[in-house]
Amino acid sequence: MHAATSVTNTRLIAVDWGSSNLRAVQMDAKGQILARRDFTHGVLQVPPGEFERVFEQCLGDWVSEPQTLCLVSGMAASRQGWHEVPYCSCPAGLTDLIPALRWLRPRLALIAGLHTVHADTGITVSAGQDDVMRGEEIQIFGALALTQLTRAVLILPGTHSKWANVQDARVQGFRTFMTGELYALLSQHSILARTLMPSADLDEPVFEAAVQLAQQGPGVLAHMFGTRTSALFDRLPPAQQASHLSGVLIGEELRAMAHEGHEDCELLVVGSQELTRRYRLALKQLGRPCRVIHDEATWAGHLALAQRLGIPYFHS
Amino acid sequence: MHAATSVTNTRLIAVDWGSSNLRAVQMDAKGQILARRDFTHGVLQVPPGEFERVFEQCLGDWVSEPQTLCLVSGMAASRQGWHEVPYCSCPAGLTDLIPALRWLRPRLALIAGLHTVHADTGITVSAGQDDVMRGEEIQIFGALALTQLTRAVLILPGTHSKWANVQDARVQGFRTFMTGELYALLSQHSILARTLMPSADLDEPVFEAAVQLAQQGPGVLAHMFGTRTSALFDRLPPAQQASHLSGVLIGEELRAMAHEGHEDCELLVVGSQELTRRYRLALKQLGRPCRVIHDEATWAGHLALAQRLGIPYFHS
Repeated sequence: MHAATSVTNTRLIAVDWGSSNLRAVQMDAKGQILARRDFTHGVLQVPPGEFERVFEQCLGDWVSEPQTLCLVSGMAASRQGWHEVPYCSCPAGLTDLIPALRWLRPRLALIAGLHTVHADTGITVSAGQDDVMRGEEIQIFGALALTQLTRAVLILPGTHSKWANVQDARVQGFRTFMTGELYALLSQHSILARTLMPSADLDEPVFEAAVQLAQQGPGVLAHMFGTRTSALFDRLPPAQQASHLSGVLIGEELRAMAHEGHEDCELLVVGSQELTRRYRLALKQLGRPCRVIHDEATWAGHLALAQRLGIPYFHS
Repeated sequence: MHAATSVTNTRLIAVDWGSSNLRAVQMDAKGQILARRDFTHGVLQVPPGEFERVFEQCLGDWVSEPQTLCLVSGMAASRQGWHEVPYCSCPAGLTDLIPALRWLRPRLALIAGLHTVHADTGITVSAGQDDVMRGEEIQIFGALALTQLTRAVLILPGTHSKWANVQDARVQGFRTFMTGELYALLSQHSILARTLMPSADLDEPVFEAAVQLAQQGPGVLAHMFGTRTSALFDRLPPAQQASHLSGVLIGEELRAMAHEGHEDCELLVVGSQELTRRYRLALKQLGRPCRVIHDEATWAGHLALAQRLGIPYFHS
């Protein structure tokens, strides 16, 4: 009886501790989600030295159970986080993350982010230019697990949007675009902010026309000013300006990546409902179909990594 | 004696009243500058209804002299300014500005800005997209007067950089790029601001390499993140990061305009010492020579317009 109970009680506690949020789920060994918790204690909100305390306060009861394994992805492993964990270098597959884990306790580890130096990886050449991700790597491996793909281009939209090139189930290289951060800066702090309503719902035709506009003409620095002049001449009401700006920026990201030689790869867009909707619409405008995966990719990635380790797991 | 004295005492008071500054010079009828005044009372600093008072406080003594003409260019003629003056439509030459003047007093007028709708003007096609300038038009006509050119492409760097296509001494069309505003936003408010020193001196080799980088690869949204990763991996010390970002942004502006069919036109860069230096360096990197004109273009433009009117001038 005792052994059977033990197996039933094994738990994976998967934590995604990013810049603005701490999200966690408790899963059984097969990936069934038993409980969820969300907190606003993002890495940027936690003072140095307070990470242990905040973690215990949020998840202490979960990790104190005996038959558990807790994996933490995201910015918690950055210089500003709980402990800085060196990046794992590309090309990198799921199993390469295992020796890169940073064990803070025998059953609690931080997951390393990925580092690439841009070279001839199918994601553009620009010798000697570093690129990094923290948190997206686990979404990538989760999306691969969910789709059973070993070859794909993954787009992970966000504050810093990532494009990753996967071959043989390993991330060969990736690129970061400041699309989301630029959208926030321009819509809140630039001259566009005088009339633009950032919270307006997406206007699909306006967004799609802006995506098309971004494929031609004098580039994103000019097109973003078009949002302003369209407002000045009452061609775009305030509620549509955010959609125009969003289309111009996402359209530029797609324009820049249009000739990267991944036309024959399946395209996976991984992220929130709202952002994946925009990328799917934009890609469709450009005649590129894609598959969309939402936040379940994060938990699937944690589970895939945990299954390689085995649960319960004790790091000695 | 009286007539001779009158002629000697005729004065042009040229005022450039922009968003952040009010600059004025007093010239004789031949354009000799007799006095200069600079104030920080930019249009954005003046409360509605206070423009008359601020103007009188700054320049009341100059304009109260009998034999004068005062012309005001810049944002003073915008919706947020002293009086909104409708834009003059492109194509527009210097004399087209005369009927567009808004006379606030018999010897004081606001100069209209220019408006274009992007069409096949040599500055890229994008049907139905408006563009506007206020203040740059007088710099353009001043630069043409100083160089005696009637055909050129003019670049006016700034918060909103302008490229104008001049044929037959008329502005056929122009394009606005948010290069300067984006530089300010990114260097002060984005993730780059964590390490970048905005006030550092220009590092020419770093700037030039970034201009070259911007000509290739995955576009400006990715290259600007390169400034951040170069910081993370200690490839660029904080004092060089601003030069890198500046090169990436100005390089993108030049990349976008590289195929606009003005290879056979003389290129004039008009603006401040610091900004024209950067554009000249960037253009040189791309094998494009240019001529540089500094702020004297503004006063030369005012003078050229005044000479068409005659000084002293009395609008009845």
